[in-house]
Amino acid sequence: MATSAPTRDSVLTRAVRIFDTFTPDDPVLTVSEIARRSGLHLATASRLVAELVEHGLLARDDDRRVRMGVRMWELALRASPALTLRDTAMPFLEDAHYVVKHHVQLGVLDGTEVIFLERLSAPGAVINYTRIAGRLPLHVSSSGLVLLAFGGPALQEHVLSGPLPAYTDNTITTPARLRAELAEVRKQGFAWCPGYVHPDALGIAVPVRGARGAVVAAVSAIVPNHPDNRAVIGVLTAAARGIGRSLTGPPLTH
Amino acid sequence: MATSAPTRDSVLTRAVRIFDTFTPDDPVLTVSEIARRSGLHLATASRLVAELVEHGLLARDDDRRVRMGVRMWELALRASPALTLRDTAMPFLEDAHYVVKHHVQLGVLDGTEVIFLERLSAPGAVINYTRIAGRLPLHVSSSGLVLLAFGGPALQEHVLSGPLPAYTDNTITTPARLRAELAEVRKQGFAWCPGYVHPDALGIAVPVRGARGAVVAAVSAIVPNHPDNRAVIGVLTAAARGIGRSLTGPPLTH
Repeated sequence: MATSAPTRDSVLTRAVRIFDTFTPDDPVLTVSEIARRSGLHLATASRLVAELVEHGLLARDDDRRVRMGVRMWELALRASPALTLRDTAMPFLEDAHYVVKHHVQLGVLDGTEVIFLERLSAPGAVINYTRIAGRLPLHVSSSGLVLLAFGGPALQEHVLSGPLPAYTDNTITTPARLRAELAEVRKQGFAWCPGYVHPDALGIAVPVRGARGAVVAAVSAIVPNHPDNRAVIGVLTAAARGIGRSLTGPPLTH
Repeated sequence: MATSAPTRDSVLTRAVRIFDTFTPDDPVLTVSEIARRSGLHLATASRLVAELVEHGLLARDDDRRVRMGVRMWELALRASPALTLRDTAMPFLEDAHYVVKHHVQLGVLDGTEVIFLERLSAPGAVINYTRIAGRLPLHVSSSGLVLLAFGGPALQEHVLSGPLPAYTDNTITTPARLRAELAEVRKQGFAWCPGYVHPDALGIAVPVRGARGAVVAAVSAIVPNHPDNRAVIGVLTAAARGIGRSLTGPPLTH
């Protein structure tokens, strides 16, 4: 059995490389494009795509171009713990979005990035780079700073010792400033990030606390970059409390 | 090359069988449970789970139990055409949900079932079996009847000639009644399904029309089963028009 293990390894690895070629900007690709982007031979890519289409994990358009299959989406969502958190949060996100307008989002920690489980956007809202299932580095975004501030010393030292790339002139790019801002987030209970990701946008985030007070997510708003948006903090804080309460169940009555 | 094809086939097939063992009710499983449910040998399941964990498609809890990985969710959502439709629809679904309360959902046709891309629910809403990424047979639900009514004769004959299982005493279970209701849906522009899925719930659905007037989705509401809920039809119809308009872009101005 051991001799066939490398083949098994490579099929899954290649399948993941094929999935990786699809992006929000390029959700539909030809098999040639998939081969080129994945670094696979055309014949290999073509055969694997055919298999993945058979399983419904990929799908073909009428013109034989390829996209993610509904089955992939279904498998991923149906039993996803991310969906449970998102489902619990949704009524509170909707209420906050009704008041805040623009963008309201829910993010969780994944490695050294924040990944966004949900984003509610109003038509005509301020620019926002976030997408559902999109990622941002922790030091850049308000959600990331909240998750990092409450993420424990090991994670903090790891991020502090790594590169801190700038997105704008306002992005935190030095360990000293990052340390100071993390302390501020812990003290104030929110992150306030004017123009960190885009000059026109202000990110505001608060922690969601689950069982035993552990921070399990961040609720954030992206609004126009004006200092008069401080009222948003209260709306987000109330939403985060509601989510946390729903996650941990009702308090015991006497 | 031909001789190795069955091995390749079986790795992906087995991986899909492993994914299939996870359900909304059982999102976390032990490797033994995965082996039993997938019909794979324990050693095979164990090895494949380890590989899928390495790729982030599955993840292990602290107690080594297994669940879907965030990466699977990310891959599926990031480039999903379903997400594009859902994103476009979201502001209109939110507005409708604000008025209708209870449940508002977006469904699309997949084979002979409706699959739900989104569901907004209010706390304390009426009972609803629908889940995001959940499915229902076309003849049972209001969304399904809309998608079937506008789904073309081949699909209709296929469903009419198959079994029509009952969910309640009110479910459509005869081809004659199904034909009559589909004609009614086409004539009225909505489906009205009191107690078809659950005696206490009323399903109401309207079609979303995309390019060239083709029906691409259904917007539905699940509300308490009372005849005085007819005002919901107008709210859903307006939402569906908005979604359709956003999908096809603004009309040309002269």
